[in-house]
Amino acid sequence: MKKQSVGVGLLGLGTVGGQVARVLTEKAASLSEQVGCPLVLRKIKCLPQDLERPLAKELPAGILTTDDAEFFSTPGVDIIAELIGGEHPAYEYQKRALGSDRHVVTANKEVIAKHGVELLGLSQQHDVGLCYEGSVGGGIPLIAPFKHDLVANDISGVYAIINGTTNYILTRMAKEGADFASALKVAQQLGYAEANPKNDIEGIDAVYKLAILATLAFQMEVKPDDIYCEGISRISSRDFRYAREFGFAIKLLAIGKQSDGSIEVRVHPVLIPEDTFLAKVDGVYNAVLVEGDLVGKVLFFGEGAGARPTSSAVVADIVYSAQKIFRGIGGKTRLKIDSGRTIKPMSAVETEYYLRITAADRPGVLAQIARTFGDHLISISSAIQREAESAGESAEIVIMTHPAREQAMQQALAELARLPVVKEISNFIRVENV
Amino acid sequence: MKKQSVGVGLLGLGTVGGQVARVLTEKAASLSEQVGCPLVLRKIKCLPQDLERPLAKELPAGILTTDDAEFFSTPGVDIIAELIGGEHPAYEYQKRALGSDRHVVTANKEVIAKHGVELLGLSQQHDVGLCYEGSVGGGIPLIAPFKHDLVANDISGVYAIINGTTNYILTRMAKEGADFASALKVAQQLGYAEANPKNDIEGIDAVYKLAILATLAFQMEVKPDDIYCEGISRISSRDFRYAREFGFAIKLLAIGKQSDGSIEVRVHPVLIPEDTFLAKVDGVYNAVLVEGDLVGKVLFFGEGAGARPTSSAVVADIVYSAQKIFRGIGGKTRLKIDSGRTIKPMSAVETEYYLRITAADRPGVLAQIARTFGDHLISISSAIQREAESAGESAEIVIMTHPAREQAMQQALAELARLPVVKEISNFIRVENV
Repeated sequence: MKKQSVGVGLLGLGTVGGQVARVLTEKAASLSEQVGCPLVLRKIKCLPQDLERPLAKELPAGILTTDDAEFFSTPGVDIIAELIGGEHPAYEYQKRALGSDRHVVTANKEVIAKHGVELLGLSQQHDVGLCYEGSVGGGIPLIAPFKHDLVANDISGVYAIINGTTNYILTRMAKEGADFASALKVAQQLGYAEANPKNDIEGIDAVYKLAILATLAFQMEVKPDDIYCEGISRISSRDFRYAREFGFAIKLLAIGKQSDGSIEVRVHPVLIPEDTFLAKVDGVYNAVLVEGDLVGKVLFFGEGAGARPTSSAVVADIVYSAQKIFRGIGGKTRLKIDSGRTIKPMSAVETEYYLRITAADRPGVLAQIARTFGDHLISISSAIQREAESAGESAEIVIMTHPAREQAMQQALAELARLPVVKEISNFIRVENV
Repeated sequence: MKKQSVGVGLLGLGTVGGQVARVLTEKAASLSEQVGCPLVLRKIKCLPQDLERPLAKELPAGILTTDDAEFFSTPGVDIIAELIGGEHPAYEYQKRALGSDRHVVTANKEVIAKHGVELLGLSQQHDVGLCYEGSVGGGIPLIAPFKHDLVANDISGVYAIINGTTNYILTRMAKEGADFASALKVAQQLGYAEANPKNDIEGIDAVYKLAILATLAFQMEVKPDDIYCEGISRISSRDFRYAREFGFAIKLLAIGKQSDGSIEVRVHPVLIPEDTFLAKVDGVYNAVLVEGDLVGKVLFFGEGAGARPTSSAVVADIVYSAQKIFRGIGGKTRLKIDSGRTIKPMSAVETEYYLRITAADRPGVLAQIARTFGDHLISISSAIQREAESAGESAEIVIMTHPAREQAMQQALAELARLPVVKEISNFIRVENV
């Protein structure tokens, strides 16, 4: 039962939606050839204000609507691409599309992170596909490798620089000695950070993306709430200076890894050795390192956001869905969710630590601090003591530890904070040797 | 017409074949789950000496044969993985397998580079698949991105470090100041280079892989003979020293790019800026940078060879083929070959150049050399003149040019060699700003 043509409907005509509309019209001939039959953009649901945009005038007459009912009742729409972003009403739109037997393509990280497994279940009931390559890492192939190329592997770890805004800010702090606030301001001026940058700098965006990748990598449902999360706002230019002295870069890393039969999933700043590939990923670029038992380490790198890269992934998913529709082979997206694995609580995670402590500048201070660590069986690998820059009576003590359990470290930090000689735990950052 | 099980036959039980056999037996349960039905290794054609290997004893009794006729007549073999390598008889085996309606999976770069388009045509006639992810870059997904993830893009360039042996040798020369011969010797001792290293160090292996990638990227048949090729044996430790002074690394790069409506395909040593990602790819690792109009730059990095990474790709292709067989949907591998593009002759290629010339150490020499370049409209961007290390009367002159046409450069070099003051054109290396 081959089709004569495959029809596409777009939900959203924002930056990504607009770019996808442009690609589907401008590249219609070459995309149709890849599908095997004409691939036709049939309807776009947009906001009233979109009707006034120049793009609206370029599109075929009558293709735009602001009405949900009209959009969903347009005949011949086989694939619906949801590109409005945010949880609601995108989630409801996706359910409605799948529920009416339409294949869904989306770049919506929040909906897939929070509801992906449920939506994939719904897609299977209706024998249609749900594709979301654009939800993580722009146009970098990240979903497909887990679904196809790496299926023979047991994945031991995923280490990802997956938020361009924070990586831009950290790069600027590292290269120019800028402090966090001024680096953020530049990022905002350049359009790399939003006016309200909370989702990026607090790590929430990275959490959504890690939830999606970890679900695929470890074949278990990992939800955003399962993921430990810390943002980058407490990193200071001093931390970069000390990190460099020890031979490390500072990055916001999204980490998913197997550990003693359970899974660690966490997003937080880390010190990583400066000669590693991830340490060299600068600016708004994204990079995802995957470790498998057969493949070893593979790394995927590219522009992680933006309308054009994201449209590359969305249109590829549309073509893939259309090929299946054209050949009449249903679209079922398999998702294996049965590994029986559990998520390790953060308190049980073990890493090395970098600590920066402001203390009184008098004899015996380092000894007192070291004793507190010793009481919690935390072993120090190296320490630097310097006069603090401002007050003459303060010293800055920087400590690197051997691997220690998070719980022990938190207890030690609480005790250290109560020591009379300790003025402030200025920062602590975990170390990841990837 | 769903199948109860999917059967696999292996041609070859060498390092890759042996590892694939191991994965198919050890991971049978999880792979079968991904396929949807049991995935069964039914027959292996091996050499007589393989029967004595420990692995042979681990495999199910009766699975091994040294007889072609027995192998090809084994019932229930739906997929044949050709893992013997080399052109013959691998090419004939693949034809025989496709001709008898079996899906073919291979890691054979030489056969795919030389006969890929013909074999894909044959696979289409028989409505079976021909998958060759393992033929390039070990387990790094490189074929799939072109076939699926990047289909919406017009690919402007592919820049690949794709031969681990040469990259290991060049890395050792760069980091330790070793000369070519001793770096090669170490590579041989470590098993990174073969006793007869010709295919690697002369760039032939990279040519095969570039032929495969360029065919996909530019949708035209690119054969090994179409590709300009130079190996690395004339690179000396002095070149590394000068390259570093100018801010460059030296790599063997496989380059495919669009240029004035035609395609450049070439494998040769290049100077690349040392702050780029490709410049930082060290040792036996591979990296492929792809540039598309939508996706921008994406980079794929990993172990480019070895039994385990290659088995990751081969088994993924087997699972992919088996999924199609299980669902009864045929396997046709589409390959669009119709771009009507032509390959630019090397003489018309334009690049910048690095030249190292040994000349008489007397006044006016640089002026004479510069005049020769000027006569051919080649413009010099910078020059260094040093006393040569050995003879007191020689000077070493190193020149970097602005972009120039290869033909003009070759003519200039011939003229330079005839100048009485020029003792030797010690080296010339193209510069690629990727």
